[in-house]
Amino acid sequence: MGRYTVGVDFGTLSARALVVDADTGRELADAAMDYPHGVMTQALPDGTPLGPDWALAHPGDYLACLGTVIPEALKRAGVRAGDVAGLGIDATSSTALPVDGNNAPLCLKPEFARKPHAWMMLWKHHAAQDHADRMTDLAHRRGDAFLERYGGRVFSEWLFPRLWQILEEAPEVYAAADRFIDVGDWLVQRITGTDTRAGGIAGYKCFWNRAEGFPEAFLAAVDPRLAAAPRDKLRGTIKPIGSLAGRVTGAGSALTGLVPGTPVAAANIDAHVSMPALGRAEPGDLMMILGTSGCHILVGDALRCVPGICGVVDGGILPGMIGYEAGQSCVGDMFAWYVDHGCPAYVHEAARAGGMDAHRWLTDRATRLRPGESGLMALDWWNGNRSVLADAGLTGLMLGMTLSTRPEEIYRALIEATAYGTRVILDNFERNGVPVKRVFACGGIARKNPLLLRIYADVLDREISVVRTSQAGALGSAIFAAAAAGLYPSVAEAAGRMGGAGDEVSAPETDNVRIYDALYREYLALHDHFGRGGSDAMKRLRRIREAACRFTP
Amino acid sequence: MGRYTVGVDFGTLSARALVVDADTGRELADAAMDYPHGVMTQALPDGTPLGPDWALAHPGDYLACLGTVIPEALKRAGVRAGDVAGLGIDATSSTALPVDGNNAPLCLKPEFARKPHAWMMLWKHHAAQDHADRMTDLAHRRGDAFLERYGGRVFSEWLFPRLWQILEEAPEVYAAADRFIDVGDWLVQRITGTDTRAGGIAGYKCFWNRAEGFPEAFLAAVDPRLAAAPRDKLRGTIKPIGSLAGRVTGAGSALTGLVPGTPVAAANIDAHVSMPALGRAEPGDLMMILGTSGCHILVGDALRCVPGICGVVDGGILPGMIGYEAGQSCVGDMFAWYVDHGCPAYVHEAARAGGMDAHRWLTDRATRLRPGESGLMALDWWNGNRSVLADAGLTGLMLGMTLSTRPEEIYRALIEATAYGTRVILDNFERNGVPVKRVFACGGIARKNPLLLRIYADVLDREISVVRTSQAGALGSAIFAAAAAGLYPSVAEAAGRMGGAGDEVSAPETDNVRIYDALYREYLALHDHFGRGGSDAMKRLRRIREAACRFTP
Repeated sequence: MGRYTVGVDFGTLSARALVVDADTGRELADAAMDYPHGVMTQALPDGTPLGPDWALAHPGDYLACLGTVIPEALKRAGVRAGDVAGLGIDATSSTALPVDGNNAPLCLKPEFARKPHAWMMLWKHHAAQDHADRMTDLAHRRGDAFLERYGGRVFSEWLFPRLWQILEEAPEVYAAADRFIDVGDWLVQRITGTDTRAGGIAGYKCFWNRAEGFPEAFLAAVDPRLAAAPRDKLRGTIKPIGSLAGRVTGAGSALTGLVPGTPVAAANIDAHVSMPALGRAEPGDLMMILGTSGCHILVGDALRCVPGICGVVDGGILPGMIGYEAGQSCVGDMFAWYVDHGCPAYVHEAARAGGMDAHRWLTDRATRLRPGESGLMALDWWNGNRSVLADAGLTGLMLGMTLSTRPEEIYRALIEATAYGTRVILDNFERNGVPVKRVFACGGIARKNPLLLRIYADVLDREISVVRTSQAGALGSAIFAAAAAGLYPSVAEAAGRMGGAGDEVSAPETDNVRIYDALYREYLALHDHFGRGGSDAMKRLRRIREAACRFTP
Repeated sequence: MGRYTVGVDFGTLSARALVVDADTGRELADAAMDYPHGVMTQALPDGTPLGPDWALAHPGDYLACLGTVIPEALKRAGVRAGDVAGLGIDATSSTALPVDGNNAPLCLKPEFARKPHAWMMLWKHHAAQDHADRMTDLAHRRGDAFLERYGGRVFSEWLFPRLWQILEEAPEVYAAADRFIDVGDWLVQRITGTDTRAGGIAGYKCFWNRAEGFPEAFLAAVDPRLAAAPRDKLRGTIKPIGSLAGRVTGAGSALTGLVPGTPVAAANIDAHVSMPALGRAEPGDLMMILGTSGCHILVGDALRCVPGICGVVDGGILPGMIGYEAGQSCVGDMFAWYVDHGCPAYVHEAARAGGMDAHRWLTDRATRLRPGESGLMALDWWNGNRSVLADAGLTGLMLGMTLSTRPEEIYRALIEATAYGTRVILDNFERNGVPVKRVFACGGIARKNPLLLRIYADVLDREISVVRTSQAGALGSAIFAAAAAGLYPSVAEAAGRMGGAGDEVSAPETDNVRIYDALYREYLALHDHFGRGGSDAMKRLRRIREAACRFTP
């Protein structure tokens, strides 16, 4: 048997496979593929229109990627399928779909192809927010304790509010579904022929908890028809992350090109799987995954209920540790918005002349500014606030503009705003009894923008280490695969050998920390004023906006 | 004697002469010239550096313009100098200079050419703000009533704080100055050989009042050496606006090309002189001069002290009426900032492809938006707030941004912000007992942007008429010239014949008014929160900024 493992990372727009030497963590080769149907927000493939908050995906795309990226990455790595010791899969979550008794997606059957509720709902599908809010209200009225583990509110990105909406709006889909399943679990089941569901997905996205199981009494109170859902529509064997889900079957071999019998790890959530990429994690380690949005995952040794986070699950991120998740709704997306829609032509021209892109040009200029020099302050809520306010209705703010304000100042203010938002998240963990000891970063933006990490270090007054790999997700899945395959006695041992931080460490500078302390107080005052009820201007403007959009002159 | 009058309007960057048929108001021709030295903000002509808030002008430029634009406009009009019945001059104010006993500028003498304090300080020169603030404090401690006529505070754009600063920082300039004089008065004196000073300038910029004269006791309390300034350094015969200052002398003829003996009106303030361009004004008429900044002048029949305005002077704008002035520190400047520094390349490209400029393209797109549809709200303080907060330390704010926010939405939000700012000014007048009955507009932006006027009409819930002329300033001066020359028995009669509104009237639309009422409440809440002490974030960020700029790493 070879000592190579393969990690496959299913993101929002594409999937990527990485072949790793399991003895050293050396990355041999990778291969990626975009989903042919992308994200469907306007219409189904046949043209059936979708509502404003819908975001669907095509399960066939995921199967197609599976059959493409694994063989391609192996070919590039020069590794034979027979030398692959294990496979690990991670995917966005909750990105779930209804399937029939043969594990076939309902949406691919002619009778359901026109029904939006039969399709795979992507994590960022928000159509069930109203159902989520009603669930939150009910849980608070009933005093259901489980919700405290989820920061105190139900989010439309999770499975049960979606099931409830399907039950109410498309009962025929609900009835026809043999099960609803997250795409990561579904792929693992298709490859292994088992009924394995991953503990991380069940824990963070389905209210499940090892000690208490599913909150069936609450679900019955929501709708009596939902009471049986955990035993019925979500049935399967929940296995802890890092464990063996099963082995590649003949059908699985046809899907992946791997050899029958190859071990396959239980599925994982894409953001969480980055954690072992830092190496052997200790309680208090926090990983920032900085991409279009931001995700902050933290492991600890005690379970605390922390308001405003996305969730806490025992063993949900790494086996044997308490896993916490918090997030920022937009990070890179906000910088991209600025470059695309707020940045003058002369910046693009100067960047072109200098042979760089606008982000790089703005970063170079912004690097020359001192903290506070722009006089600007922004709230990073261009896509709402996930943690700690958990309020999708909030919007962006910037103040301090003068006639002398220049693009690099705005760009830096946006970076700083995400840094302040991160500090709110870290401070919230610590204030609620979850210590943050070491901070790591991964993701495209962390690697591409050294100024951003310097600003984060100054604002957080902490050292920040960037993980060695540029593929933290796929490497993480390869690490989980190595543990599941028994190449290492534990995920921790596998991570210790296969992951690790690079030499790059951003360290805080005393003078900057002092200035950013003062600026953070300004951020916090605005954050609380607009986010905690001092002013509901953003909500009222949103309502006026919604009314204006419905207005027919 | 001919029936033509000439108005010359000295702006910030250029002067313009207009030849008008005094019987009909028909504009025959105009001619303009930029000041060769422009506005000096960095250095004197010899390279002597200037401080950060300095803004100086070259008096020689004004004489050069006088000798160029009048002959050129007459030539283009086909009017002989001998057929000019009168000349009127208006200029920015307070734009004053020290002169010697022969009315020659000190700054043009070799011994003073290197002393910044000896130069002509432009209206927007703000170096004396500290002295102005100290004067405000003293007046409040002493309970000086005159300050209530000026909205309750001394502004650095007025003459006395500047005299005090010169006295303290360049006593040799103060001692050598025979007099300090506004450039409009200075030009009239140079042309007529009289010592006439205009009542409008003395009233709005020098604390003068027909009933009480100058506040000498207050000036003595500021600095004993200032007590004599009104009789000494400001001496001259104060004449009401619209009256005859004198007649062109031989020297004046050499300067202007006009015939000796031609009547010359007392000088006027450039913003104020636009009032008669609307025709015969009634108490309650308000004129908005909308250019790079905004000026709101209003005539009434009773003198009220109104907090936060720039000033109220009996007969200061039109003879026989109480003249009120308020203003907005930036209007067109803010739109220009956005187009230059905040507007993406694709807007400029689309505009070019459509054969228009970016303002026009953005306006076209913004016109298609409904009120409230963008979800954006801005505070129009990119250059501080003149009325009614009178606070140069305030800065811009925008909120409501999302990842879908587009340039035309931002552009419209900026226009709307200036409309809300205007409503604050109008409401403030009315709340303090000064009724606003009719609203007129003039200035480049009022004429070029029909969307802006529609938004203003909706936000103010008032009809807005645009004056007929595109040269409200120069036409106004020609009207004052006609009255001073005796062609009409009064300015009102002259204005009734020579001025007038065009056919263009922007009228409010009920549906929009209702939405803008709700949006205005949001503006006002933000305005008061950030402008009246709810949050001093803008001030603190400014202080942090100043400290950062001084920081030497």
